Amino acid sequence: MISCDTIIIGAGPVGLFQVFELGLLGVNAHVIDSMPQAGGQCIELYPDKPIYDIPAVPVCSGRELIERLQQQIRPFAPQFHLGHTVTALERVHDGRFRLQTSDGLMFDVGAVIIAGGLGAFAPRTLNLPEAAPLVGHAVHYKVTQPALFDGQDIVVAGGGDAALDWALTLVERARSVVLVHRSPTFRAAPASVERMRSLCDGGCMQSCEGDIVGVETIGDTLAQVRVRTRSGMVQRIEASHLLVFWGLHPALGPIAEWGLAMERQQVAVNPSTFQTSVPGIFAVGDINTYPGKKKLILSGFHESALCAFAAHAYLHPGDKANLQYTTTSPALQRRLGVRDASRDSVAEPPPRVAATAA
Amino acid sequence: MISCDTIIIGAGPVGLFQVFELGLLGVNAHVIDSMPQAGGQCIELYPDKPIYDIPAVPVCSGRELIERLQQQIRPFAPQFHLGHTVTALERVHDGRFRLQTSDGLMFDVGAVIIAGGLGAFAPRTLNLPEAAPLVGHAVHYKVTQPALFDGQDIVVAGGGDAALDWALTLVERARSVVLVHRSPTFRAAPASVERMRSLCDGGCMQSCEGDIVGVETIGDTLAQVRVRTRSGMVQRIEASHLLVFWGLHPALGPIAEWGLAMERQQVAVNPSTFQTSVPGIFAVGDINTYPGKKKLILSGFHESALCAFAAHAYLHPGDKANLQYTTTSPALQRRLGVRDASRDSVAEPPPRVAATAA
Repeated sequence: MISCDTIIIGAGPVGLFQVFELGLLGVNAHVIDSMPQAGGQCIELYPDKPIYDIPAVPVCSGRELIERLQQQIRPFAPQFHLGHTVTALERVHDGRFRLQTSDGLMFDVGAVIIAGGLGAFAPRTLNLPEAAPLVGHAVHYKVTQPALFDGQDIVVAGGGDAALDWALTLVERARSVVLVHRSPTFRAAPASVERMRSLCDGGCMQSCEGDIVGVETIGDTLAQVRVRTRSGMVQRIEASHLLVFWGLHPALGPIAEWGLAMERQQVAVNPSTFQTSVPGIFAVGDINTYPGKKKLILSGFHESALCAFAAHAYLHPGDKANLQYTTTSPALQRRLGVRDASRDSVAEPPPRVAATAA
Repeated sequence: MISCDTIIIGAGPVGLFQVFELGLLGVNAHVIDSMPQAGGQCIELYPDKPIYDIPAVPVCSGRELIERLQQQIRPFAPQFHLGHTVTALERVHDGRFRLQTSDGLMFDVGAVIIAGGLGAFAPRTLNLPEAAPLVGHAVHYKVTQPALFDGQDIVVAGGGDAALDWALTLVERARSVVLVHRSPTFRAAPASVERMRSLCDGGCMQSCEGDIVGVETIGDTLAQVRVRTRSGMVQRIEASHLLVFWGLHPALGPIAEWGLAMERQQVAVNPSTFQTSVPGIFAVGDINTYPGKKKLILSGFHESALCAFAAHAYLHPGDKANLQYTTTSPALQRRLGVRDASRDSVAEPPPRVAATAA
């Protein structure tokens, strides 16, 4: 059981800056995110695209924004748990929380701050009811054990890097590989596309343009994948495994089950504290809503500042955290690690009575 | 009469970023500030001190923050009116405003945004009722015509750069100069202090440590300045002019007279629009208050974003400005001047029917 002041769910820009604002108030944080790296939408959706509306940063890419924030929060040494999702959250008698992750970590935590953005990124899945019972053993959205496909007939669906990379990797071990993509153009790296085409030309794998419209099963085993091609004809492809790489999309996930008041799929918050309907659970950034809400990174930053004061008040009732400024406050500067002891000794005179040796 | 969409009162960091947020929505702005340069408290109070809590800017000085914001708003070419104060503001029948400045400029403006920080910076004044009638001709808080002091007996009050610089300048033209400062230490540049001491040693001017406790007048002419020295004795100094340089302090000024609902010297606003109690007048940054308000630059930035949407709605009723992102919106990128026409022609296919020659 890990004990800490706060857990921030979501390591996007707002979750990262939440670490900073809590740190200034002396509140520590663990950060959990379902993705294997920090950055949220900035990294998943637009790592290389320019952002122009961060105040005092005339232009930066999504990746640069995250790097700058990571540098800024370094003094507070947050602990990251990446590639985990929160599976259970329970408020216990003393107002603290028990929180559990998909990888079995257990936390005893004082306050929870949801900075979940659009939700956890989850793979886009087949919209085929008959495929649901096959997920994990015959239908796959990720590859954990490549050996599973040794000598098998497999269909790989998708046109991005994940689809191409796995098709090119598994062609070495599978008996047959058919790549199914709905378009003649591929988003994957040109070199991968070229290698795929050359393997198809050489008869080592096949490529098929069309939409997956069904699967045939024998018991709980996959037998065929049905693909409707551009001509309208449905083609049946023999396969024991179907690997689908259609990218990620955000989903609210278990957050929807925590009993928080919601408004149109957003978590409703008090805009002076960013507390949800459950005391001790807060929400900042794109996942929350309040009158006038705009889904701007900038607004999430502001929300994280006010939320830090409210979380501090929840953790330490009666101990009011006064607003201090990083420009002038020795306490904040010590927390930031930018004030050296020699300056303190000048600013604060030594005690008048010398201590006797103990 | 200058006609414009909005006037921003205050060119501190929040007033500057307000230009940006309005500009993204296609709303133009004039900016008025009582100081001769933009920057507000960042420039007046801590130009060289580090700020650590601007998101994605791990550290910058007050001056650097202002330079970065000036760069960011350049695409929107705001018009600055520096060294002016707003002397009159009136809402007229069509919901627009007539606004007048101390230098006689008249504006016809659609919406007014007060980003006044702590208020306008005004000189600290003598707390002597008998001095009030002398201000401007015998008691001075600024020097506009140095020739006024030719051959005169003058007292200069203060210990900072303004006091020392004027004492050292006017010693060349006045008959006598006495510098009055309440402390033996001076905040002015060491070289100025050294030169002042050397002039005093040489009998060219005098220095007196003490507090100004009164003035004697003959009609509306200044005759003597009374100074209580450290010993408690009151000394009378013959003088026809008293120049006071005790620095600046912020004052709400005429804003207090515009009939806006106030709470403890702050302008009360709706936190979803940042509109004051008067439709079409908005307030952002340190000058406003709402539940949970923290006087953070970051919060002012967020407020300016939401205020821009509300001001746009006030200016264009029924024409809803949708939230767009600088990363993806061609319209915003054109306003920012970062999208070239060639990209547009690729992104947007040419019309299918060729235009015939006109």
